[in-house]
Amino acid sequence: MAQDTGRPLRLGIDVGGTKVALALGDAEGRLAAHRRIPFPATGEPRADVEQMLAAARALLDEAGCGAGGLEAVGISAPGPMEIGSGTLLNPPNLPGWHHIPLAEWFGAALGAPVAVENDADAAALAEWRWGAARGTQHAVYLTMSTGVGGGLVLGGRLHRGAHGAGEIGHAPVEWDGAACACGLRGCLEAYVGGAAWTRHLRAEAPEAGRVAALAGGRDAITPRHLLAAAREGDDFALTELARWNGYLARTIVWLAMVLSPEVVVLGTIARAAGEQLCLAPVRELVARHLWREEGQAPRIVAAELGETLGERAGLAVAALAAERAGGRTEATRAAR
Amino acid sequence: MAQDTGRPLRLGIDVGGTKVALALGDAEGRLAAHRRIPFPATGEPRADVEQMLAAARALLDEAGCGAGGLEAVGISAPGPMEIGSGTLLNPPNLPGWHHIPLAEWFGAALGAPVAVENDADAAALAEWRWGAARGTQHAVYLTMSTGVGGGLVLGGRLHRGAHGAGEIGHAPVEWDGAACACGLRGCLEAYVGGAAWTRHLRAEAPEAGRVAALAGGRDAITPRHLLAAAREGDDFALTELARWNGYLARTIVWLAMVLSPEVVVLGTIARAAGEQLCLAPVRELVARHLWREEGQAPRIVAAELGETLGERAGLAVAALAAERAGGRTEATRAAR
Repeated sequence: MAQDTGRPLRLGIDVGGTKVALALGDAEGRLAAHRRIPFPATGEPRADVEQMLAAARALLDEAGCGAGGLEAVGISAPGPMEIGSGTLLNPPNLPGWHHIPLAEWFGAALGAPVAVENDADAAALAEWRWGAARGTQHAVYLTMSTGVGGGLVLGGRLHRGAHGAGEIGHAPVEWDGAACACGLRGCLEAYVGGAAWTRHLRAEAPEAGRVAALAGGRDAITPRHLLAAAREGDDFALTELARWNGYLARTIVWLAMVLSPEVVVLGTIARAAGEQLCLAPVRELVARHLWREEGQAPRIVAAELGETLGERAGLAVAALAAERAGGRTEATRAAR
Repeated sequence: MAQDTGRPLRLGIDVGGTKVALALGDAEGRLAAHRRIPFPATGEPRADVEQMLAAARALLDEAGCGAGGLEAVGISAPGPMEIGSGTLLNPPNLPGWHHIPLAEWFGAALGAPVAVENDADAAALAEWRWGAARGTQHAVYLTMSTGVGGGLVLGGRLHRGAHGAGEIGHAPVEWDGAACACGLRGCLEAYVGGAAWTRHLRAEAPEAGRVAALAGGRDAITPRHLLAAAREGDDFALTELARWNGYLARTIVWLAMVLSPEVVVLGTIARAAGEQLCLAPVRELVARHLWREEGQAPRIVAAELGETLGERAGLAVAALAAERAGGRTEATRAAR
């Protein structure tokens, strides 16, 4: 795609354990150019970053964006991280990466201000700026993927807390309950995380049942097969889904009582399950368990950004970098 | 007490179902004069407020503070309320009070800017400005009294959410668990609220046991007797207290994972139970169930303001009124 040349562009990068999404876009989150590369995994963080920079430069060329045309860079990456300096500490999914000063490396190479955020926070910012939570002051975003994470936008600002907020996947839903990958017990993720749920389904699904049949064997079951069987009305699948929805609803009631957000945005698995299998039953459970006046429950909706969430997440972080670098310019531009 | 006459004074009022605390103080929360009156309960809100105004005027006279010497007024009151207009809606503990425009009435009578906040939020602000949470950016305050409420200061600002945040007492700790006064089941308050706990103890305490003996009969048991028996090492009391601490710890783990506050401040019952019976065991439970790096757990401490919490809560709200009325003046004063 060719660039609207007068418009300053921003670069968003979403670093994941298997792939890296890169996007050039504008202040409204519109994509000018984007591409995905596999996570380099050279075993050498500096070499990994060089490959990402090569992809970024190719994207800038493609968009006709020369030196000085790049306004800001935003990087969404797995935590833990030090936000102030933009340093990844020891992300479990990026082999060999320890204390990597991403903001410094990308800033020196690209000559633009860089911000780095936790990927769940970045996704929350993207859904809040351009997706299902746009126009709100208080929004909660829940990733519902292999693991469960979250991001909180409160009072129109990302809430990071003292040491990283939004770790909803490791909030306890059953005290001393099921074992979680984190080493503790009873975490939300141990019940509704995709990886934990997959293990549970493979162990519990009837050998000769519909879920196993759709998967071609119990050992190949994934949440996708469960959702397909539930759509066909399979009893085991519906019971399992009700349990999954129940833990999700319980978490949303907690969030609604404590934080009173206007909207709760649900990602991947909830989005795939959709209105009938997830959103409607969860809304009903929440309404029954919420001590709030009529009209005070948060809206419960699926994430909207879908396929380009990573790209938009990077751009949402780039917006933070641009705001920090020149808040006044940004405000002036928005007012036009 | 006589006033330091050069200093602008603020009036703080804490309206409770049985008493009203009034205080004159300065920007640092120091009390110049204070008094308490019974909640008037004339059955007529306007007459109730007139009595509060009479007490306020007497206090102003006592401090030698004439017309124009009052900088701001802050009112802490039970919810629900409409913050923007300073209107109490239908507080269950104030008989006959429905849609009372407190800010308007007090503002017209006293000629100063007025702010009104929920009492748990006001107490949180007071502990954050002058008590156990001072110097932090992210603090959670839990009232642990007849009921359980909470207030959140996040990023140095009170977080009110869309429809009142911090309703921690009605967050679910057991899905479909014990019946709560709110009409739902499994709320935190149904396990650790003073009223619910008292009912539970009266039903469960052994007739011939130590707790009943200290109370002079099962029907007279209160949490105070349970704490006294626990200090003597009574088994029933220690088991009950461990259960109480467990629900509290579980709630703090949830708050720590989702909000990552620097400090969690615990009120009334937890404060009365103290270090050995409550704070130390709760800290240990939280540490064992928290998925956080060393040093990232919130501090867990007792509230500090104690006997004058109501007075300070009113003054903390008055500080908001003063800031809104003249943010610049306030900042200039603070910088001196």
